[in-house]
Amino acid sequence: MSDVLVVGCGLLGTSVGLALRDSALGDVTLTDLDAAHVATASRRGAGRPWDGREHASVVLVAVPPTKTARALTEVQRMDVARTYTHVSSAQSHVQAEIEALSSDPSRVVGGHPLAGREVSGPEAAAGDLFVGRPWAICPSAASAPDAVAAVRELAGACAAVPVDVDAETHDRAVALLSHLPQVTASALAGQLLTAGDRLPVVLAGSGLADTTRIAASDAALWTDILSANAAYVAPLVAGLAASLQDVAASLAGLAAGESGGAATVRAFLERGSAGRAAVPVKRGELAGAFDRVRVVLADRPGELARLLQAAGEAAVNVEDVRVEHVPGRPTGVVDLLVDGAERDRLKALLETTGWQLV
Amino acid sequence: MSDVLVVGCGLLGTSVGLALRDSALGDVTLTDLDAAHVATASRRGAGRPWDGREHASVVLVAVPPTKTARALTEVQRMDVARTYTHVSSAQSHVQAEIEALSSDPSRVVGGHPLAGREVSGPEAAAGDLFVGRPWAICPSAASAPDAVAAVRELAGACAAVPVDVDAETHDRAVALLSHLPQVTASALAGQLLTAGDRLPVVLAGSGLADTTRIAASDAALWTDILSANAAYVAPLVAGLAASLQDVAASLAGLAAGESGGAATVRAFLERGSAGRAAVPVKRGELAGAFDRVRVVLADRPGELARLLQAAGEAAVNVEDVRVEHVPGRPTGVVDLLVDGAERDRLKALLETTGWQLV
Repeated sequence: MSDVLVVGCGLLGTSVGLALRDSALGDVTLTDLDAAHVATASRRGAGRPWDGREHASVVLVAVPPTKTARALTEVQRMDVARTYTHVSSAQSHVQAEIEALSSDPSRVVGGHPLAGREVSGPEAAAGDLFVGRPWAICPSAASAPDAVAAVRELAGACAAVPVDVDAETHDRAVALLSHLPQVTASALAGQLLTAGDRLPVVLAGSGLADTTRIAASDAALWTDILSANAAYVAPLVAGLAASLQDVAASLAGLAAGESGGAATVRAFLERGSAGRAAVPVKRGELAGAFDRVRVVLADRPGELARLLQAAGEAAVNVEDVRVEHVPGRPTGVVDLLVDGAERDRLKALLETTGWQLV
Repeated sequence: MSDVLVVGCGLLGTSVGLALRDSALGDVTLTDLDAAHVATASRRGAGRPWDGREHASVVLVAVPPTKTARALTEVQRMDVARTYTHVSSAQSHVQAEIEALSSDPSRVVGGHPLAGREVSGPEAAAGDLFVGRPWAICPSAASAPDAVAAVRELAGACAAVPVDVDAETHDRAVALLSHLPQVTASALAGQLLTAGDRLPVVLAGSGLADTTRIAASDAALWTDILSANAAYVAPLVAGLAASLQDVAASLAGLAAGESGGAATVRAFLERGSAGRAAVPVKRGELAGAFDRVRVVLADRPGELARLLQAAGEAAVNVEDVRVEHVPGRPTGVVDLLVDGAERDRLKALLETTGWQLV
């Protein structure tokens, strides 16, 4: 009997297996409709392939939201575990389906780790994906307390922070905090195509990369997520569209020389500032925590290594490196992020050894 | 006579003064309607206060777009310099105003450094703000060639990359690549307020911080920028609103159990993915242009150097490095971005020399 059976070896399922590796729930079995996914996840150390019979303490179903209830209740009918959970980005819809299909809803507790990447599949999985991230625990009215405790323990073993929340509150929250941003980024990135070949991307503002990053997410998976939570997402998207229509009208008025539009635009921007103030700063955000040393670097093999070697020899711990390339030029600029106490020492060292600091 | 007279000591004007400090145009004079701004900029080393008479080779006007033409032509009437430029985020509107007001439009050349921060004022200025960033050079039909050359030299002295572009092309580009993302981020962040006190921000997805970051930008300045470029921004915002309305309708249909909506949502998301692929991640490099090799790294001095040295010895040109730290853990994960043709060779090399690949 294993500790956890993971059903679905994509990004999340495989990451759970990797995260549990050194935990008290470290004996993990793996299954997936796609045998290649099991092979990849297993080779990466996420667990051993499930033989189709072996029991587990907990079954974790990590398949797209609209397939979750069916997959979970099918494996529950095989009676291979005491507790069943899933990782669906939408809870209410899945909970209702499970209540209709399950042989015993008291053994099922929904869950959702608030962690992800804009890439997918077992190759993209990471054992540290859940570290410090919230993991919503969403029991139904039928869920047994010991089942809830088992799922909470599983989340904790992945180094996540369990957050108890009912399914409806969860779905409203992620619709606003995760699904609406996804739709917005996709809509904005989609608009870039309207410029066709005439898009001078060299003039891109620094905000464009941030605001469109998650537009690269898996379209099939997100279609499924948005479908499962459509009832909560649809009115939010409509509300955003209405807000943009209002500001478009004010801007059109301004372009036509009408007065009054500027005050409306300003109120709109101030409202955005106030909303932004409510957003938690990204976990692990390093930009403010370290000091920066900027160095000009020739764009050829070994230069970055030579630079970091110089820092290493001085026993300066470089916490992060950011490289900017300049199109058509043989040099780039590198930011070394270091502890504030080490900044001046590193700068002095690099200057005396011939590096060009900015 | 100074090299450059900076009119307006906010973020951009003060940053220009700081950037020029060690350049061939290092003698900078400063003026601002607000004497405190001049004092701060001067104390920070951006230049010396202007006495109101001293001549300069170039005058750089760094005030909000709707005030630019008036400020520039007023100082030009004092005949204190040979060449006049500005840093307005919108060019056509300012150029038309200058042509109407200027005593000699041949001496004026518009400019716009594509650099900024979501904070403002001389305290936020940085001498490296323009390093490697594009600086649009937008002459009018009247601009004299030697004036264009002088402005291009000024941009280069700030370590920016001059990009020649006509005013209309510039305005269309920044409307799409900078102003539309700003409006979108503000609209999205503003929607967060609809949840009032009931917003469980602990459930925020990792994309929320990115998609709303620039919503913190200065509302007064952005009202001015959007006003000056309203003719180009308004239809883009309307187009985005229409796209969101369409997807809201599809989602509402899905929530009501109608078929067909999923295909529309998926096409919308795929369009966003395609648009995102056109976004430069680091300047000049497209999101998909490089392959990634992930390596687990102990978080101690010299490890990153040792890794990059290994890559350098194999003559693999590492184009970019991204470090992810895991809070409270002694290891991090490093992404090395390399040319696709070199990826497998680098992976094989690292594996045989004992590095842990992910």
